[in-house]
Amino acid sequence: MSDIKYKILGLVERDLEKIEITLKDNLNPHVDLVAKIAGHILFSGGKRLRPLIMVLAARICGYRGNYDYACSAIFEYLHAATLLHDDLVDEATIRRGKTVAHLVWDNPSAVLTGDFLLARSLSLAAATNRPDVIKTVAKITEYMSQGEIYQLQRKGALDLSEKEYMEIIRCKTAALFQGACRVGALIADASSQMAAALADYGFNLGIAFQMVDDLLDYTLDTRVLGKGVGADLKEGKLTLPIIYSLNATDKKDGTQMKQIITNKDFSLLDFEQLIRMMQKYGGQQYTESQATLYSQKAKDALAVFADSKTKKTLLMIADYALTRTA
Amino acid sequence: MSDIKYKILGLVERDLEKIEITLKDNLNPHVDLVAKIAGHILFSGGKRLRPLIMVLAARICGYRGNYDYACSAIFEYLHAATLLHDDLVDEATIRRGKTVAHLVWDNPSAVLTGDFLLARSLSLAAATNRPDVIKTVAKITEYMSQGEIYQLQRKGALDLSEKEYMEIIRCKTAALFQGACRVGALIADASSQMAAALADYGFNLGIAFQMVDDLLDYTLDTRVLGKGVGADLKEGKLTLPIIYSLNATDKKDGTQMKQIITNKDFSLLDFEQLIRMMQKYGGQQYTESQATLYSQKAKDALAVFADSKTKKTLLMIADYALTRTA
Repeated sequence: MSDIKYKILGLVERDLEKIEITLKDNLNPHVDLVAKIAGHILFSGGKRLRPLIMVLAARICGYRGNYDYACSAIFEYLHAATLLHDDLVDEATIRRGKTVAHLVWDNPSAVLTGDFLLARSLSLAAATNRPDVIKTVAKITEYMSQGEIYQLQRKGALDLSEKEYMEIIRCKTAALFQGACRVGALIADASSQMAAALADYGFNLGIAFQMVDDLLDYTLDTRVLGKGVGADLKEGKLTLPIIYSLNATDKKDGTQMKQIITNKDFSLLDFEQLIRMMQKYGGQQYTESQATLYSQKAKDALAVFADSKTKKTLLMIADYALTRTA
Repeated sequence: MSDIKYKILGLVERDLEKIEITLKDNLNPHVDLVAKIAGHILFSGGKRLRPLIMVLAARICGYRGNYDYACSAIFEYLHAATLLHDDLVDEATIRRGKTVAHLVWDNPSAVLTGDFLLARSLSLAAATNRPDVIKTVAKITEYMSQGEIYQLQRKGALDLSEKEYMEIIRCKTAALFQGACRVGALIADASSQMAAALADYGFNLGIAFQMVDDLLDYTLDTRVLGKGVGADLKEGKLTLPIIYSLNATDKKDGTQMKQIITNKDFSLLDFEQLIRMMQKYGGQQYTESQATLYSQKAKDALAVFADSKTKKTLLMIADYALTRTA
C-alpha cells in the first residue's frame, strides 16, 4: 500500500473516527431489516473519502462549529444508496470482497434500503436549515441517477465516445465529490470565491478518482478491488482505457479487441490479451495522464487558500487519488 | 362511476389542468430514457389526488401566491417514484391497465428513474427555500421506504396483526397525504393550528384511501383497478379485510382460508370461495366501517375552517375516498 495513504490516515485519524461514529448515530432506522442491510453496505470498509473532503473543505474555510460531522454523513449515505442500486443495476456479485446486498437479501430489500438511505441523506441536508445546502444535495442526486441511466442506456455500445464517458463520470461520480466540497464551504459561510474553488477541487478530484477506478479494473490482481477480473467489461461498461485504445487501434487488432469485449464469457487468457493490446495502443497510459491532469487541476484550485495542515491534507488526497491501488 | 367524482372534477377542473401542465414542465430530465419511463408512469391516468389536496390545503389557508402548483408536483413525483420501485418490489405486471415500467423496459431502468423522480421531488422542495417544507418532504420519503420494507419483511406472514397493518399503511400511504396537506398549509404561512388540522385531515384521508384500496382488491371485477384479481394476495400482502376475517374465523374455515391464501396459484373459484368466507366473518364490512371512521375523522379535522368552496371540495374528497371504485 502506498506511503501517502498512511500519511493521510495519520493526519485525519480523529476525523475518520468521528465520521464513523456519526454514520452509526444518524442512521436511525425504525425497521430492523433496514438497519442490517444499510449496515452491510455502510460498514464494509469504505474509505469515507466523501465525508472526509466535506469536513476538510469546511475546515479550510475556517469552520469552527460542531455540525460538520453530522453534515458529512449525507455524502456517505448518498454514496451507499447509489452503491446499493448500482450493484443491482450492474448485476454485480461482489463489492469490497463481500457478497452484495441484493444477493445476501434480495433485490426489493436492496432497492428500498437504498431509498431509505437517499431519504436519510436528504433529511440530514434538511436539518441544516440551509436551502443552499439542500439544493446542492438534491441536485447531486439528480445528476447521479441520470449519469447511471445514461451509462445503462449506452451499456455495451462499442462506439461510446470519450465525450460521453466524461459526461457519465461527471454525473455519477464528480457531482458528489463536487457537492461535498461545496457544502463544506457553505456551512463554513465561506466567500463565493472559496466555495467555487472547493467545488472545483471536488469536481476534478472526482474525475481523477473515477478514471483511476476505471483503470484499476484492468489490473490482473483480482484481490485489489475486491471484485472479479474485468468486472466493468462483463457489465458492458466501456471506460476510458478501452475507449481510447479502440479509437487508436488498427483494423485487425480492433476486431480482435471487440471480439473479446463483446464476449461476456471471456477467459483470463482473453483478458490478458486485451490488456496487452490496450498497452500497445496506450489506453492505460492515456487514462493515467488524464487522471494526472485532473488531479493537478484539483490541486491548482486550492491556490486561493493559504498554506495549512488542512490544505496539505487536501493536496495529498489529490495525489492519493492517483496512486491508490484499492 | 360515482356522482361525487364528477362533482369534484367539476370543482377542480382548472386545478387539475394546471397540475397536469406543471407535471410536464418540471420534469426536466437530461436523458431521453428518463423522460420516457417517467412519462410512462406519470402520464397514465393518475388521479392527481396528492397534488390536488396540497393545492386545496394552501387555498383553504388563504394562499394567494403562484407557487402552489409547482410545489404540488413534489407529491406526484414522489408517488410515481414509489410506484416504480414498488411495482418492481411486488413483481407486479400491470398498473392502471398498462404493463409496468420494469417489464416495458427493465428493472435497472425502473430503479434509476424512480431515483431520479425522488431526487426531482426533493429538488422542487429545496426550491421553495423553506426548511419546514423540505424537512416534511424528506421525512415522507423516509417513512414511505420504511413502510414498504416493513411490508416486505412481513410478506406472506399469516399472523400479521391489525396493528402492524396500520403501521404499514401509516408509513407507506398516509404519510404522503399528511405531508402534502401540511406543505399546503406551510406555503400559505398558516397558523400552526391550521397546519395541524390539515395534516390531520391528510393523515386520516390517507388511511381511509388505503383501506378502500385494499378492499377493492377483493372485488371480482378485474377491470376496476386495472390489475389482476387478488393481486395483493398473490404478492403475499395481507390487508385488513383478510386480517380481520382470519382473526374472526373458526378453526375449520380458518384452515381453508389459509390454504387459499398460501397457494400462489389459487383459481378464480378459490378466490370466490375466499371472498364468501370473508363476507361470512365480516372482513369487508369491518374494513368499510374503519374506512368510514377515518374518512369522518378527516372531515372533523376541517372544523377549524369556515365554510367555503374549498372546504366543501376537501369534504367531498373525504367522501369520495369511500365511494371510489377505481
